[in-house]
Amino acid sequence: MTMNKSVNELDRVFNPRTVAVVGDKKEMGYMWLKSLSTFQGKLYSVQIDPNELAGIEALGVENHSSLLDIPEPVDYVVIAVPRAVTPRIVADCVEKGVGGVTLFTSGFAETNTEEGIRLQRQLTEMARAAGLNLIGPNCMGIFNPKIGVRHSPDQYAGEGGSAGFISQSGTIATFFGLAGALNGVKVSKSVSYGNAIVLDSTDFLEYLAQDEQTKIIGMYIEGLKDGRRFFDCLKRVAREKPVFIWKGGDTEAGTRATASHTASMAESPAIWQALMRQSGAIKVDNLDEMIDTAKLLLHAKPVAGERVGLVAATGGQSVAISDAFAKAGLRVPCLSQDSYQELASFFDIIGASYQNPFDVSSNLRSLENVLRILDILDGDENIDSVVLEFSIFLLARWMTGPQSLDGFLDGLARFKARSTKPFLTVLVSVHMEERASEVRHKLTQRDIPCFPSFERGAGALRKMVDYYRFRQAEGIPV
Amino acid sequence: MTMNKSVNELDRVFNPRTVAVVGDKKEMGYMWLKSLSTFQGKLYSVQIDPNELAGIEALGVENHSSLLDIPEPVDYVVIAVPRAVTPRIVADCVEKGVGGVTLFTSGFAETNTEEGIRLQRQLTEMARAAGLNLIGPNCMGIFNPKIGVRHSPDQYAGEGGSAGFISQSGTIATFFGLAGALNGVKVSKSVSYGNAIVLDSTDFLEYLAQDEQTKIIGMYIEGLKDGRRFFDCLKRVAREKPVFIWKGGDTEAGTRATASHTASMAESPAIWQALMRQSGAIKVDNLDEMIDTAKLLLHAKPVAGERVGLVAATGGQSVAISDAFAKAGLRVPCLSQDSYQELASFFDIIGASYQNPFDVSSNLRSLENVLRILDILDGDENIDSVVLEFSIFLLARWMTGPQSLDGFLDGLARFKARSTKPFLTVLVSVHMEERASEVRHKLTQRDIPCFPSFERGAGALRKMVDYYRFRQAEGIPV
Repeated sequence: MTMNKSVNELDRVFNPRTVAVVGDKKEMGYMWLKSLSTFQGKLYSVQIDPNELAGIEALGVENHSSLLDIPEPVDYVVIAVPRAVTPRIVADCVEKGVGGVTLFTSGFAETNTEEGIRLQRQLTEMARAAGLNLIGPNCMGIFNPKIGVRHSPDQYAGEGGSAGFISQSGTIATFFGLAGALNGVKVSKSVSYGNAIVLDSTDFLEYLAQDEQTKIIGMYIEGLKDGRRFFDCLKRVAREKPVFIWKGGDTEAGTRATASHTASMAESPAIWQALMRQSGAIKVDNLDEMIDTAKLLLHAKPVAGERVGLVAATGGQSVAISDAFAKAGLRVPCLSQDSYQELASFFDIIGASYQNPFDVSSNLRSLENVLRILDILDGDENIDSVVLEFSIFLLARWMTGPQSLDGFLDGLARFKARSTKPFLTVLVSVHMEERASEVRHKLTQRDIPCFPSFERGAGALRKMVDYYRFRQAEGIPV
Repeated sequence: MTMNKSVNELDRVFNPRTVAVVGDKKEMGYMWLKSLSTFQGKLYSVQIDPNELAGIEALGVENHSSLLDIPEPVDYVVIAVPRAVTPRIVADCVEKGVGGVTLFTSGFAETNTEEGIRLQRQLTEMARAAGLNLIGPNCMGIFNPKIGVRHSPDQYAGEGGSAGFISQSGTIATFFGLAGALNGVKVSKSVSYGNAIVLDSTDFLEYLAQDEQTKIIGMYIEGLKDGRRFFDCLKRVAREKPVFIWKGGDTEAGTRATASHTASMAESPAIWQALMRQSGAIKVDNLDEMIDTAKLLLHAKPVAGERVGLVAATGGQSVAISDAFAKAGLRVPCLSQDSYQELASFFDIIGASYQNPFDVSSNLRSLENVLRILDILDGDENIDSVVLEFSIFLLARWMTGPQSLDGFLDGLARFKARSTKPFLTVLVSVHMEERASEVRHKLTQRDIPCFPSFERGAGALRKMVDYYRFRQAEGIPV
């Protein structure tokens, strides 16, 4: 049975004032001390190997030969020693009364070896008996950018976001933070928790549920220790904040992988699907879907309607965007007669069309025209969401100057500010990957969600609509 | 009824020695004359507006006031005049006896206006009566990079590839050429053919079927003029060369878009599915799927087996890759006992595993280890294809030097050269889009297919396996 850790205790671990790293060394490139170089509080190292001391000193970190020698209380400890040594260090943590521990070390039950299984059992018993807040083993622990607690030197520090993330995988936690930031989905606090021998997903979900900085919660889960407790918690939390769940090990092959990765026991995919459907959690199948949908929930107006107004730059793309959104179960309706009347007054239909989808073609060359079209869709009672694609114009002469590009994007930002409906953009990079990244970045800065393909935009909108429909059906205020 | 144009006639149009552009002008940025500046043969302009003559002269192009004044036979004409003028120019083309015409002008039946429909009927009757090889209207026509015939200044010239492309959309033809080249799928010849009032998809399919330079054929089709003729042709051609079909207007909304785009009549999606299944054509749903699958067919060894060996850099990714390939209907089997025995002799399982999927973790730091793992999979009788993911190492210190990166990629190229099975790589860009593009480019140069996500790699492999299974079942030699 996983213990129900109080929120207060986890708050100390997620917001430490003192951190100690046990066992970081040159062979690992001092990855932990370097990652924690941004930490706003006091950082200590614990290392007994005399050959490592000069390197640790060069990083400006105070070293002690034992956790117990650190002259103040320690809120958060990272243990990176060989597995055979871990019980001794965990015992020190208990004696020191630390706030919590990330056990980075791997080689436990997930290896399916006798020694690994024995050591994992020993650590579990020690930590539970002492009430130690142990994260892991076989994990990367906490990322709290606001106070500079990181687990990779690639992560950012200094500005927190509003997306909490709970991940059994360290790589996926790292990727979520990095790719999310690029998409306007910045992390408030995240945790990678590996084998989950003491603290499990439910503990972290309870913690982030009450964390004010956290507005949405993403989860990557390979298995649960206590399914009933998780479900009860999820049902409660998902009513308060959007919860995204990516279940790793969703297939027989994936389940074999989760056993080797975090020694997780697999529940059936059908159980997980029912659990998500009943709780109103948002089911995603990979990191892209997670970030795409989070981006929309954070940066688009809420909507429960399925009717989209689709504006593409050219004819082929107007067909492709319609197929993609229709295949996602969204509707592409005809507009109101008022809209058609207004469109007829200015829209050049040579090489273009406006039935919905729109093929705007040369009409896109004038920002005024584009905004007029978008405003018509925003005002049309048949339309719930507005989508704009303009990939071809990456290639066009008039976008080569930064001024005209910025002017165009500023116009879109003004539309977004005055619009009442979700507004999505799609920009296919074609062969101009760098240029497309730059434009997507500019859109993110303007708080406009942008997707790299029709399918991804459509998939995210579908999930957002389903989320708000669930809330509507349950009578939960949007 | 579409006429069955002889291959000889189309050969003249696709490989012109003289090209004339009628009606290019400053307002269009001289897009046609600039696109054709790379043309290896003789380029003429036809323009009667005196205000345009200086601009055309500045481009170094010889101008005449009528097609009939050009002092030699003309193989290929691009018409870019206003729609009302098109019948007169088409009459000139007939009188001149040109090889063929791309009618770029739009504003015909696709506008659903009386004048547009009337003009389209008039042009159709004129061209058919005269046996004129008319492409379009409302299209971009031919791209033959080898001889510099282009329809966009963004396209490349000088080196042809082996992928033919037949597209009712100009944007999609352009995108295929540009995005394809970045992925090692370079165009032999492509054509954008719009409303298809004379020449239709079947004519181009017949032409590319016999074109020696063309090894695979992609098609983007919104509608057919003569379904029976197309099907008979497709059944024949698909036995000779892989044919990829993306049917635009696959949904009700998409069908409305195709009517506005190319005035296409929609056949039912069910008919198209049956047609593709029976002919062995490869069904794709968007440009990414088209290029992904083409990349694999051009740059991977053929395979009809479904069993994949999956190598991921870390644990979370080993779960994600397994789920993605299993969801695509591929199998992730256990390896042979010989393989496990050899792996046990050197593979470090602390923080790693090798059940299939592999979580190689620190084992990936040695190129020798990676190659040994790949060779084991290549030699394992339980495995049909080998997949390697190494995204996290984009972030790792040891890949920051170009030498160690190139050395790693050269090692993969050596493996590919000696391997007997398809070899795919997956590189997720996370937040390092530029860096990932660079690495993907280096892989493309080494003839190693690389995908930006597990799902896209899995989808492409599924389609390739299905293609070879169809051939196997039909008794067609691979």
